[in-house]
Amino acid sequence: MATHVFEPDTFYSTLGSHPPILEIDPGDSVSTTTVDARGGDKNGEFCGISGNPQTGPFFVRGAEPGDTLVVKIERLWPNRASGFTSVQIAPNVTEFGYRPAFDDIVDRADWSLDLDSGTASLSSPHNRLSALELPLSPMLGCFGVAPDRDQAISTATSGAHGGNMDYRGFVEGVTVYFPVFVAGALFHVGDGHAIQGDGEIIGSGIETSMNVTFTLSLLSGKSINWPRAENDEFIMAVGNARPLDEAVQHATTELIRWMRDGYGLTEREAHLLLGQCVRYDVGNVYDPAYTMVAKLEKSLLAEMS
Amino acid sequence: MATHVFEPDTFYSTLGSHPPILEIDPGDSVSTTTVDARGGDKNGEFCGISGNPQTGPFFVRGAEPGDTLVVKIERLWPNRASGFTSVQIAPNVTEFGYRPAFDDIVDRADWSLDLDSGTASLSSPHNRLSALELPLSPMLGCFGVAPDRDQAISTATSGAHGGNMDYRGFVEGVTVYFPVFVAGALFHVGDGHAIQGDGEIIGSGIETSMNVTFTLSLLSGKSINWPRAENDEFIMAVGNARPLDEAVQHATTELIRWMRDGYGLTEREAHLLLGQCVRYDVGNVYDPAYTMVAKLEKSLLAEMS
Amino acid sequence: MATHVFEPDTFYSTLGSHPPILEIDPGDSVSTTTVDARGGDKNGEFCGISGNPQTGPFFVRGAEPGDTLVVKIERLWPNRASGFTSVQIAPNVTEFGYRPAFDDIVDRADWSLDLDSGTASLSSPHNRLSALELPLSPMLGCFGVAPDRDQAISTATSGAHGGNMDYRGFVEGVTVYFPVFVAGALFHVGDGHAIQGDGEIIGSGIETSMNVTFTLSLLSGKSINWPRAENDEFIMAVGNARPLDEAVQHATTELIRWMRDGYGLTEREAHLLLGQCVRYDVGNVYDPAYTMVAKLEKSLLAEMS
Amino acid sequence: MATHVFEPDTFYSTLGSHPPILEIDPGDSVSTTTVDARGGDKNGEFCGISGNPQTGPFFVRGAEPGDTLVVKIERLWPNRASGFTSVQIAPNVTEFGYRPAFDDIVDRADWSLDLDSGTASLSSPHNRLSALELPLSPMLGCFGVAPDRDQAISTATSGAHGGNMDYRGFVEGVTVYFPVFVAGALFHVGDGHAIQGDGEIIGSGIETSMNVTFTLSLLSGKSINWPRAENDEFIMAVGNARPLDEAVQHATTELIRWMRDGYGLTEREAHLLLGQCVRYDVGNVYDPAYTMVAKLEKSLLAEMS
Repeated sequence: MATHVFEPDTFYSTLGSHPPILEIDPGDSVSTTTVDARGGDKNGEFCGISGNPQTGPFFVRGAEPGDTLVVKIERLWPNRASGFTSVQIAPNVTEFGYRPAFDDIVDRADWSLDLDSGTASLSSPHNRLSALELPLSPMLGCFGVAPDRDQAISTATSGAHGGNMDYRGFVEGVTVYFPVFVAGALFHVGDGHAIQGDGEIIGSGIETSMNVTFTLSLLSGKSINWPRAENDEFIMAVGNARPLDEAVQHATTELIRWMRDGYGLTEREAHLLLGQCVRYDVGNVYDPAYTMVAKLEKSLLAEMS
Repeated sequence: MATHVFEPDTFYSTLGSHPPILEIDPGDSVSTTTVDARGGDKNGEFCGISGNPQTGPFFVRGAEPGDTLVVKIERLWPNRASGFTSVQIAPNVTEFGYRPAFDDIVDRADWSLDLDSGTASLSSPHNRLSALELPLSPMLGCFGVAPDRDQAISTATSGAHGGNMDYRGFVEGVTVYFPVFVAGALFHVGDGHAIQGDGEIIGSGIETSMNVTFTLSLLSGKSINWPRAENDEFIMAVGNARPLDEAVQHATTELIRWMRDGYGLTEREAHLLLGQCVRYDVGNVYDPAYTMVAKLEKSLLAEMS
Repeated sequence: MATHVFEPDTFYSTLGSHPPILEIDPGDSVSTTTVDARGGDKNGEFCGISGNPQTGPFFVRGAEPGDTLVVKIERLWPNRASGFTSVQIAPNVTEFGYRPAFDDIVDRADWSLDLDSGTASLSSPHNRLSALELPLSPMLGCFGVAPDRDQAISTATSGAHGGNMDYRGFVEGVTVYFPVFVAGALFHVGDGHAIQGDGEIIGSGIETSMNVTFTLSLLSGKSINWPRAENDEFIMAVGNARPLDEAVQHATTELIRWMRDGYGLTEREAHLLLGQCVRYDVGNVYDPAYTMVAKLEKSLLAEMS
Repeated sequence: MATHVFEPDTFYSTLGSHPPILEIDPGDSVSTTTVDARGGDKNGEFCGISGNPQTGPFFVRGAEPGDTLVVKIERLWPNRASGFTSVQIAPNVTEFGYRPAFDDIVDRADWSLDLDSGTASLSSPHNRLSALELPLSPMLGCFGVAPDRDQAISTATSGAHGGNMDYRGFVEGVTVYFPVFVAGALFHVGDGHAIQGDGEIIGSGIETSMNVTFTLSLLSGKSINWPRAENDEFIMAVGNARPLDEAVQHATTELIRWMRDGYGLTEREAHLLLGQCVRYDVGNVYDPAYTMVAKLEKSLLAEMS
């Protein structure tokens, strides 16, 4: 149950079967850092690549295809006092034919992060939004494992292996489950957001570099089809696909499987209960693959047993 | 500002330019009843048609195409102690190829409603769900106005005119806005659910008959593109379309319009703020048209002004 | 087997249960005219409504819900020497973010129709396209029957009842089948195009008024789920839905049903044969509902028997 | 202008930046072989991997990111007398809720290929289809170049780099263009089909091993966004995405770009001409990404100049 402190100097623009940067035992924790979406570290220095560079991969001894990797996000907090966002809602999130009428052309907005009070505000005084102090809610935008078939999948998208899901529920305290496709699982992590709206509809949260501590463990011989997660309140299943309808289909079906395999409900009970009690959250609706989360209150599951 | 007590005896399976059953002044309230999705009233008697029969239409004097109809849901509560649901999650909400393995064939489940304690439970003791007591959260599944172009649109679907949106946020206390397409607006209301999960993924909430009181008023000369709503906490814009991506597009764009036209933000400010603060709720993902709600906390808008 | 010559003076902007303008026996033919998409007749005079006005409805004696209406397009030819088109490909047919860079703003292009030589050319000499002489291929853009549930559905869209399918295969000589939803079937016809590309991607073909002769007959007690069609070479099944994926699903499934019910193939045979031999044509990809046609060569069916 | 005869012994399940198996000059031809979708060669021996194994990659000297790779398919013919297909239309191509009622369970059908007469017929006498002799139309299902961002993308899907497009127009005599993302372009080729219906709706054509000869050349400094192709009759642009709507959008927009950049039409002319003359073909509608081809007759372009 060691804690490894690891300072990365290699980054990847794909989740793939890259050479591991650290090998750990199941149950070990890692304290490390992530650079921002454009490759900037805590000092604003460029790591060499852009587009959600990943720290990793981390090799978990004993992990084999068909297992499940368990990722507990122990600690997640920005390690610098600045971030940035895009400024325009993506064309695929607005109506066909909609054109924004902007006054000026900029490609990013700068934000100040007050790491003590835990708030963010716009750095530049150019509009009425400057009055806002938004509470920080640091989350991981892009993380997951090496995919199957020897693929190396861009950090611009997502799939059964995780990737760029941009779900604002992936915060400190949450446990996330990934299917293991290769020996060692090969966990990658990056793309921290200090804050993010549902859908990451402008193509960014408040992008910044992070300190992150996570614990990796294994469910050996237990296989899942899509990422899952849980916190104190909910069990959650994640679907990554386009269109959003298909993300709903994957998330819903994976949640049914979890209720059946993990909680012993019959399939009929799962259908009946989800019908009146399912909740959906929207992850990324900007990328080539969109993300939808289907979730259920744990208290309902407890009430039945 | 009269309150009209109205007991319906005619029902429609479309929202359309039917003969008005009552003509009222803007600002008037109506206390009436709705039958359940299969046409059953408070005594369980069949009203003659099935499939979300609508009470109405109500003609609002002075309403003209291009206006906005304002519907305040003053009161909404079941008027009988029973309801029913479907039992199987729709094939379009589960993965291609997924097949539920059910023990038996039933086409509905019966629920008991405790109108005093405000809870619902399964009537039949056939499974572990019988232990659950779910809190009532009565909502309107299908309501809206007569559409444009002399159309009469089935209560099985939805559009710019409202219709079968099945959004569980349409509860007592909420104000809903609809574009007016015909003289008098012609408001229809029906399809009450005692409880419903996000998405109405089994094709029903707990379907029951309702007592409903609503107030209808007008924003003359103010036109909107899609339904809008607000409660104490949020402003909300509704998109109805398939696939879900397009519902997102309509909802997001309508929310931008509201922030610009209603709150005086520049388009850039609206984009920047939604990027970090938008929230999405899922309405119906079962019908020919799906429903997505984009919403924003009012406190953010207040903080800026 | 009468032929009725009928000159319309009433038009509808929906397919619905409107009062019949003519009642005929099964097997009878009708020679009539249609106005263009904006309501212009053979003299360019405006009929009073715009947006694919329909001639009809025609009541077929004996037609009952559950029957199939058989529409043979006997003759279809423009009745004036001019037409018009839109000029811009629809935003929903080009990439998110694509913006055409046009020199000037016009909302229509005028075309000359040479009804003797059977060609069309641009009337205005403003560009290199003026050299083109395109062969006429007159087709019906919008036609079908009254839908179920007392609906009246806009001629801007399509469904199981037909409507605005804009399939360039609906030409003279083709037989089209529609499900009957109401007594008399209530056949509507309009929106003739002198020429049209796949998809009607600019939102119009060369719109013009037409002389049309069709024969209506019945398959009593024979029900179908979606429109079907056939010519000498192919059997065809039509799906109308959005996204295009769902149009594919309806068209493919309806073609399987036809092979099974109409040609006695087992379901496995139908799957195997379509796998190597199906062809798809694209109808409308502009409307709220898109249209896809799945088709199979009749010679393959003949070869087997 | 050498012709390299190359017998592969290494195969890949992704298109990626793998070590080149052969380095050639622009203008050179390669005569080689491909294994079938399950890895079987001309003797039916297994190559070691399954799932559209690729022969290659071939490194073209001088190719740089931003160039276009030109692939002329000179010769393509099965090199054995047998093939196989799947037997069931994919669930994502049939209606939600549709279930085929099959008599027996098999996972493949075997076909005999008569390479002299150029026909295919079912090997097993189990159904009426056995009477059919289908004409061979050999095509490449999966081919393309190494993608950007150091990705390695599964041969189960497709993208801007090509991949598993399963378009039955990719036959002998066609020239296909791919964007170059990495030095040398790294061309891969595999997944030959003796015959295939539109859409590859059962998830396979008649899968077999092939002899293939192709010529690779370069358009230096000429960049394209999506694959393009041409034969004597048509210019064609390819979109690979899901849903099919987005494939239409990419294909249409790329065809506009070609008409503008390659044929000197104004954007307005391109819109007007495509509106009346575009044709769409359906490639794969089975994979994670679907394929649509937008095409235009060359004679129309010639007539204008």
